[in-house]
Amino acid sequence: MAFRLTPQERGFYPLFTRAAENIAVAANELAELVAAPSAERAAIAKRVKDAENAGDEVTHAIMVKLNSVFVTPFDREDIYRLASSLDDVVDAIEEAADRIVLYRLERLPAGITMQVDVLCRAAAATAEAMPRLEKMAQLQDYWIHVNSLEDEADEAYHAVLAGLLSPDEAITDPAAVLEVIKLKEVVDTLEEAADAFETVANTVESIAVKEA
Amino acid sequence: MAFRLTPQERGFYPLFTRAAENIAVAANELAELVAAPSAERAAIAKRVKDAENAGDEVTHAIMVKLNSVFVTPFDREDIYRLASSLDDVVDAIEEAADRIVLYRLERLPAGITMQVDVLCRAAAATAEAMPRLEKMAQLQDYWIHVNSLEDEADEAYHAVLAGLLSPDEAITDPAAVLEVIKLKEVVDTLEEAADAFETVANTVESIAVKEA
Amino acid sequence: MAFRLTPQERGFYPLFTRAAENIAVAANELAELVAAPSAERAAIAKRVKDAENAGDEVTHAIMVKLNSVFVTPFDREDIYRLASSLDDVVDAIEEAADRIVLYRLERLPAGITMQVDVLCRAAAATAEAMPRLEKMAQLQDYWIHVNSLEDEADEAYHAVLAGLLSPDEAITDPAAVLEVIKLKEVVDTLEEAADAFETVANTVESIAVKEA
Repeated sequence: MAFRLTPQERGFYPLFTRAAENIAVAANELAELVAAPSAERAAIAKRVKDAENAGDEVTHAIMVKLNSVFVTPFDREDIYRLASSLDDVVDAIEEAADRIVLYRLERLPAGITMQVDVLCRAAAATAEAMPRLEKMAQLQDYWIHVNSLEDEADEAYHAVLAGLLSPDEAITDPAAVLEVIKLKEVVDTLEEAADAFETVANTVESIAVKEA
Repeated sequence: MAFRLTPQERGFYPLFTRAAENIAVAANELAELVAAPSAERAAIAKRVKDAENAGDEVTHAIMVKLNSVFVTPFDREDIYRLASSLDDVVDAIEEAADRIVLYRLERLPAGITMQVDVLCRAAAATAEAMPRLEKMAQLQDYWIHVNSLEDEADEAYHAVLAGLLSPDEAITDPAAVLEVIKLKEVVDTLEEAADAFETVANTVESIAVKEA
Repeated sequence: MAFRLTPQERGFYPLFTRAAENIAVAANELAELVAAPSAERAAIAKRVKDAENAGDEVTHAIMVKLNSVFVTPFDREDIYRLASSLDDVVDAIEEAADRIVLYRLERLPAGITMQVDVLCRAAAATAEAMPRLEKMAQLQDYWIHVNSLEDEADEAYHAVLAGLLSPDEAITDPAAVLEVIKLKEVVDTLEEAADAFETVANTVESIAVKEA
């Protein structure tokens, strides 16, 4: 673009950075929650909820700005998609934390720890990349990295699903089936978070290709 | 906008009003269905299905108009989102009614009645607000109200989920687990309807902010 | 449009055709997988996965082209929606194949075969219609046909759901409930594929109405 954006129009960039930093906070809190004894989890879930609320505010600020400025640094639809997919990440992280507490899940399979670990790395990569959006600098490494993390997340997801639903020992207790249902919901929600990170990365790629 | 819309272009407004009134019909029928003895539910579900079909026709009319008029009263993408999210509401209401009958569910937990009650109130608020879209008058109260109803819906959803999946008495019967699976699908679908009402409200807010 | 599209801009058409042909391959492989003895399914699922990868490449090629050409044969949002919904079809087909193998499902209910059969017919109709997109010729028959296939898919879906969740003989074995959970996931995913075919058809209708 040949013309200069005013500070008002450039104001999208810090909001995307804040959204991504907030996601990193939520992901790290979730990792702590999963590692914590079950009695301590409700307090940590509260902090994840705080991060989700902070994310909602950032999303709302982006949408209001999107609707009120005449010139945007990139396509309106791309801004909308980027904000929505960042919001989807933090929503899914919060939902996973919430369900672990709500369902009073005690023992979490190791696969869940692996899923959350991938989310923490995707969150760090996203938070590190967002400040480069303004200069469109070195973003390719970021989206390739997140796409490979999504493959890793898929593998972890598959392993934990197979373990839950096709366990080596046959399930003979109805309460154990109920436990599977609850754990599957957490595991599916973590996979949604990983998918949403990939959508964020794909949107950034799409923006970068247009600018090139 | 400085120029006048032709009647053809203004024709979107009555369609949105019809879509919202139709949702109110569907929500009220669903409330009746939930309160009815199970033997009478199939007949009521048929009426909810009729409302869904009527909704499909309105959505289709909006999309055809959207594609054929040159000037629209607000952004094409906003019209698309508003029509789609109204359609999502009635689809979810119909799916919930359908599943209750299809799964031959007898006893419905009180939490479902609470969820449906919130939906009826959100439907009334939406039907009442849509005719004001043309004048963009007093819409803020509407979207604030629907957002607070969504919080109420979330609370009802959480309570009913916890009751289903972490019941006070341990489940010892495999058939009872199957019942939980079926009820959870209904409960999840009602929550989708509440979320879709919020998307309708957020889209209206987005349109109103642009016009301001 | 009064002006000519360059070959570069016309290049979208062959990509949509390739995406649809690829879906037909995936659907037919899925039909083979469902009919095969369970020991042979993993090898067939591998071929469905290959089709999904091929589909991802086509989707990516469409998105890169969309972001890099200045003139598109129809609205950017429509191209985006068409590519995304074709991608959703092949993703859902692959996920269904994957789950059947991952969960080591042996006996599949007849309703699943019916669902897959409808998908194969919708895939053939879509692959047959896509080459006509450039001339906008005889597309109405196609979208009417896919909409009626979607009704057929809904019926098959309902029947198989009712059979799984409200079986004539009461379930008394916890392992049988787990089996229901696994089969329900496959059945739901097949329904998602049918819905995505309908979204493809609706998008084509939307494009055709604008051109008319």
